[in-house]
Amino acid sequence: MKEYKLGIIMNGVTGRMGTNQHLIRSICAIREQGGIQVSPDEVITVDPILTGRNENKLKALAERTGVSRWTTNIEKALADTDNQIFFDASSTLHRSRFVEMAAKAGKAVYCEKPTAVTTEEALRLAKLCEDAGVKNGAVQDKLWLPGIRKLKTLINQGFFGEILSVRGEFGYWVFTGHDEDQPAQRPSWNYRKEDGGGIMIDMLCHWRYLVDNVFGPIKSISCRGATHIGERIDEQGNPYKCTADDACYATMELENGILCQFNSSWTVRVRRDDLFVMQVDGSKGSAVVNLRGCQTQGIGVTPKPVWNPDIEQPINFYEGWSEMPDATTYDNAFKIQWELFLRHVALDEPFPYDLRSGAKGVELAEVGIQSWGERKWIDL
Amino acid sequence: MKEYKLGIIMNGVTGRMGTNQHLIRSICAIREQGGIQVSPDEVITVDPILTGRNENKLKALAERTGVSRWTTNIEKALADTDNQIFFDASSTLHRSRFVEMAAKAGKAVYCEKPTAVTTEEALRLAKLCEDAGVKNGAVQDKLWLPGIRKLKTLINQGFFGEILSVRGEFGYWVFTGHDEDQPAQRPSWNYRKEDGGGIMIDMLCHWRYLVDNVFGPIKSISCRGATHIGERIDEQGNPYKCTADDACYATMELENGILCQFNSSWTVRVRRDDLFVMQVDGSKGSAVVNLRGCQTQGIGVTPKPVWNPDIEQPINFYEGWSEMPDATTYDNAFKIQWELFLRHVALDEPFPYDLRSGAKGVELAEVGIQSWGERKWIDL
Amino acid sequence: MKEYKLGIIMNGVTGRMGTNQHLIRSICAIREQGGIQVSPDEVITVDPILTGRNENKLKALAERTGVSRWTTNIEKALADTDNQIFFDASSTLHRSRFVEMAAKAGKAVYCEKPTAVTTEEALRLAKLCEDAGVKNGAVQDKLWLPGIRKLKTLINQGFFGEILSVRGEFGYWVFTGHDEDQPAQRPSWNYRKEDGGGIMIDMLCHWRYLVDNVFGPIKSISCRGATHIGERIDEQGNPYKCTADDACYATMELENGILCQFNSSWTVRVRRDDLFVMQVDGSKGSAVVNLRGCQTQGIGVTPKPVWNPDIEQPINFYEGWSEMPDATTYDNAFKIQWELFLRHVALDEPFPYDLRSGAKGVELAEVGIQSWGERKWIDL
Amino acid sequence: MKEYKLGIIMNGVTGRMGTNQHLIRSICAIREQGGIQVSPDEVITVDPILTGRNENKLKALAERTGVSRWTTNIEKALADTDNQIFFDASSTLHRSRFVEMAAKAGKAVYCEKPTAVTTEEALRLAKLCEDAGVKNGAVQDKLWLPGIRKLKTLINQGFFGEILSVRGEFGYWVFTGHDEDQPAQRPSWNYRKEDGGGIMIDMLCHWRYLVDNVFGPIKSISCRGATHIGERIDEQGNPYKCTADDACYATMELENGILCQFNSSWTVRVRRDDLFVMQVDGSKGSAVVNLRGCQTQGIGVTPKPVWNPDIEQPINFYEGWSEMPDATTYDNAFKIQWELFLRHVALDEPFPYDLRSGAKGVELAEVGIQSWGERKWIDL
Repeated sequence: MKEYKLGIIMNGVTGRMGTNQHLIRSICAIREQGGIQVSPDEVITVDPILTGRNENKLKALAERTGVSRWTTNIEKALADTDNQIFFDASSTLHRSRFVEMAAKAGKAVYCEKPTAVTTEEALRLAKLCEDAGVKNGAVQDKLWLPGIRKLKTLINQGFFGEILSVRGEFGYWVFTGHDEDQPAQRPSWNYRKEDGGGIMIDMLCHWRYLVDNVFGPIKSISCRGATHIGERIDEQGNPYKCTADDACYATMELENGILCQFNSSWTVRVRRDDLFVMQVDGSKGSAVVNLRGCQTQGIGVTPKPVWNPDIEQPINFYEGWSEMPDATTYDNAFKIQWELFLRHVALDEPFPYDLRSGAKGVELAEVGIQSWGERKWIDL
Repeated sequence: MKEYKLGIIMNGVTGRMGTNQHLIRSICAIREQGGIQVSPDEVITVDPILTGRNENKLKALAERTGVSRWTTNIEKALADTDNQIFFDASSTLHRSRFVEMAAKAGKAVYCEKPTAVTTEEALRLAKLCEDAGVKNGAVQDKLWLPGIRKLKTLINQGFFGEILSVRGEFGYWVFTGHDEDQPAQRPSWNYRKEDGGGIMIDMLCHWRYLVDNVFGPIKSISCRGATHIGERIDEQGNPYKCTADDACYATMELENGILCQFNSSWTVRVRRDDLFVMQVDGSKGSAVVNLRGCQTQGIGVTPKPVWNPDIEQPINFYEGWSEMPDATTYDNAFKIQWELFLRHVALDEPFPYDLRSGAKGVELAEVGIQSWGERKWIDL
Repeated sequence: MKEYKLGIIMNGVTGRMGTNQHLIRSICAIREQGGIQVSPDEVITVDPILTGRNENKLKALAERTGVSRWTTNIEKALADTDNQIFFDASSTLHRSRFVEMAAKAGKAVYCEKPTAVTTEEALRLAKLCEDAGVKNGAVQDKLWLPGIRKLKTLINQGFFGEILSVRGEFGYWVFTGHDEDQPAQRPSWNYRKEDGGGIMIDMLCHWRYLVDNVFGPIKSISCRGATHIGERIDEQGNPYKCTADDACYATMELENGILCQFNSSWTVRVRRDDLFVMQVDGSKGSAVVNLRGCQTQGIGVTPKPVWNPDIEQPINFYEGWSEMPDATTYDNAFKIQWELFLRHVALDEPFPYDLRSGAKGVELAEVGIQSWGERKWIDL
Repeated sequence: MKEYKLGIIMNGVTGRMGTNQHLIRSICAIREQGGIQVSPDEVITVDPILTGRNENKLKALAERTGVSRWTTNIEKALADTDNQIFFDASSTLHRSRFVEMAAKAGKAVYCEKPTAVTTEEALRLAKLCEDAGVKNGAVQDKLWLPGIRKLKTLINQGFFGEILSVRGEFGYWVFTGHDEDQPAQRPSWNYRKEDGGGIMIDMLCHWRYLVDNVFGPIKSISCRGATHIGERIDEQGNPYKCTADDACYATMELENGILCQFNSSWTVRVRRDDLFVMQVDGSKGSAVVNLRGCQTQGIGVTPKPVWNPDIEQPINFYEGWSEMPDATTYDNAFKIQWELFLRHVALDEPFPYDLRSGAKGVELAEVGIQSWGERKWIDL
């Protein structure tokens, strides 16, 4: 049995996403399953080392997850040739420095999104890795959500005929913290521009790779942000002024003519199938996708409603839809992308989700903000 | 008992809306209920006369509805001083001529929407009536839909706290007619620009009075139309090219800062409570309104969801909402407005839904189309 | 208004099908709706005359249905030039004579199925009408059943991908009459070969036009008949020997490679959606059609079952199907074909359901019986 | 307590069926229940030894199931006189060699089905065991499915009166693998003739013992196979040509005159009670059997339907049936047959399911394929 043993520097994974999705559900899960069996005779195994600034946090996390290696000395970790991969889940504002160090050290680089706060910087990091000849990637996890995978199956099967339009609704109510017993469920920096906050920079990155990969390249965007709620309570119980957008209304036109509309908001209450739903309407059928499921309605079973406000609507519009059953096993979306990246590093398999592709997400956010300011459509 | 007997010329009501909503469910219903009892001693009664071009249709409709008076000679009907009101439900393209004749004859004028195809013309008609000193009005029926009335009750009660955003979805799948046994359920002219078709001119009129009256004056709009389906089958079974927009994605900013987004489409399949739903989110609560009902969720019962695609969503997001019960009797929306207009004519009660207000609807449609063309926000 | 007034000799319609489907639900219904409006200025009207042997029955039926004309003198009816159409619903064994008379008299000829008991005779009647230059047709009503129309819509929409196989089940339990309070619900001649009985001659006619028109031309057939029940009780309460087949198991191969299997039986009990169901399986989806409805399951929502007899089946296999809603008005199937035939006669519109096409049904029955006897597949 | 301790060589049970049904749910289950108590003073106990070619797989399976004995040296296992029984679940193509060795070694022989790929070979193996004087048997598990046992109860109770006809539907949709997220749920060799695939060889074996044992000896068969789907994706993700039949339409006549029709298909979607249902119609009642349940309808409760496509079918044809309750404990079907075979070996109790009976299944498959090729009925 040939073993590809990959040492992985996991930087800044003490946050919620870093710990749960990247460390526990991805790397630790791969370790527990005995690595990735890539052929009857070959296996890729992982050996993580946790890095960061806070020694106590690192130690606690290492103990909790059974990871034996951790250090606050990132230079030393980078100098160790057993570590071939550098993964960064630290704050976006610190990303550049870490990526530069890792590329210089010849490590393969894998980053959380957004990879930077400006397109220029995001592209600079991509080029830096390319020039250094190191493999690189950016997290684009939503592509492997079960609901999105089901949608892609429908597209491959020609279910939609011609796709006409796409409407996505993401969001939920983030409590402001004014009521003691309804504390805010997101950190306060999200709502401060000066700290890298804002829903546009957060979500438009996702919509970019989602739309580009599933429906086609985006041509132009019209975007309206808003700060619907002006004051929130921070982690210390103090009110602060919200300077970042908490809602974003984006309409996009694709090169193939499909129109996409994505609303993102932390100031809505949810009356739909899930926190994120996306309706795709086509000439032959429609689907409403959520995180794990996908409801479908073909043209043959499409009802013919009558507009008559004088009577109760006789049609139950939730009933004419069929849910796609689970036809395969749906592994954690982050883990799937990790496995693809590890195969890319070990076996040189293709991996299109690189830093250049990640920069496109930053670009959409940047252009979206510009569109808001200039109050017009902007071509990408 | 003092009787205000109003003769009403009903012009062009042989179409579906004119017959069902204005004649049968409004005027005939008022007649059957013995008129409008405006005080213990006073009643307004109605005496309709049907006018139009097709003698056979008029006669058949008169017989069917028990209306004794009908004529193809509109001049004669206008000359009759017993007829104080002229109502027009003919095609928009012929409206001007009729309104001019009626105003000249000193009749109170009441019109279906859109009152004209250009703002200039709509304003001219309004001014013409004002100069002639005749009372006038435009149909704005959706204001009296039970769902909208319930919403206004919530607003009056301060349920929402500060209203932050409004999102409306109108539409359903209009069959193209390509399949013989799924015939189109709307007339073909709706899909031809040259015949006055298009969903923008149709629906933006509604959104204007709805938003203005319920949420506040619209300040500016960004609008994107689309002709998602390029070919349909007409009434004779022949394919025709669709030249009018069949979908409209509009974002509006109100003077009070509320953001409103209204999608209208004849090319979507429906997975929501009804053909039209409108979600209103406020700092203290949210509501999802449909034609007849209204679902509410106050801040106290707002759930705190967790984003975890690895498990089935544990919250059923349809369950945390409470439906407003019917607390009154909801008469037909058209009839309610008719009664207000008849009281306006007979008793001089206020009636803000005049032709000048109707012209605002045309304006929004016109500016919306302009926004689409110029790809930018436009102030009203 | 131009009126095409068609006098129609209705011969032998005192039986159940003749009275209910052809006279009452077709011709009388057309009369009551004011004829067939074929254009704004043209209408086809019908004037039936009932003919037959039993004066009392004719008179009673005429009175019951408000038909003013009836006679036992068929020659006289044929001599009347106001009668342009001769329709025959008499016994198959007498059909030839009537068709000959009608063709000789220059009438358009329309017949119930089977048009004859042998292919030779059926083709002779077709040729006889063709040589006489009279328009002609055979009843093929099941093509206009709502369920079949829905199926055709699905086929037109490409729902199935490639159609692989078709399985039809027709039948129900026809009581033998041995129990006094469970009397037979079909006439005894159906079960006697010598009286023209047998389920093969009855049903294979239907399967022929159904398969040919919906799926494609039949290439060959393997057929097994059976007389499962050997003795029944006749109308006089006497037992009689069943000499005709009461069940038929037919497998057919179409020229396009589709395999069709149709079971027909008067000796089965029904555990399915309706008396007739037909399952169509295709690469992209399946449908189960019954008389009025159609259940569909696309490939995207197809479940992946596990064979495990040790536990209760966890999947409810009736739930993963979506029913097609009624998207149009479904008129009586016989009446629809009548209207097509009347338009054929009055306006010369095409009518492919002629006696030659009807003879194909007789051919399939004949070849089916031959296949049974020779115990092998036979090509048509 | 007298103990009959039977050493059992289990050859080739690392596959899904061998592991789950024969090893875990049969032999291990018997071991866990303390053997088979055949009288108050006598017990049969089992001591399995796993044999096969792959040492790793054998070892892992042995550990997983707590079986202490395993070896790749089958000769040695056969030489051990403590092993009285040889069970073979290896591939059909290797069966002969193993059976020969076992018979020569004087072991009782028990085999999975099909016992061979030709009748000649299957009969040779039967004769070989008979000549060697060793007890022998073939797996015929479906006879002990709860649904089939319930059916046999009905037959014994005379529920059906005279049985007239039997119609069985087996099958479900086996995904082709063209869509990544709808992977094939059966191994690819099933669809390649050259690898022993095909649904006829698989399922006709089952139908033979089922029909012979439950309804009576089969006299003749007419059979049509088909390869409805021409291309599938294999375990390595590569497309391959399907050379084996994936559907089989068989009609059989029994010596007692009953007609049986069994469809088997991997290319149908399921709208029935279970993956396998079998309807039995008799003069006094009908039953629809599935894997575990059995629905019954006696003649007294048989409805009398009316054929009227103009209205919705007023009868719900699923409702007039009564389900047989579980009146006993239904042990695993494989285990039941194992216990019968073990008693046969230890106590010389009768066991009619011998290799000669197993050869009959191969015969039916062989004759069925011949019938398909010659396009005619063939007598057995």
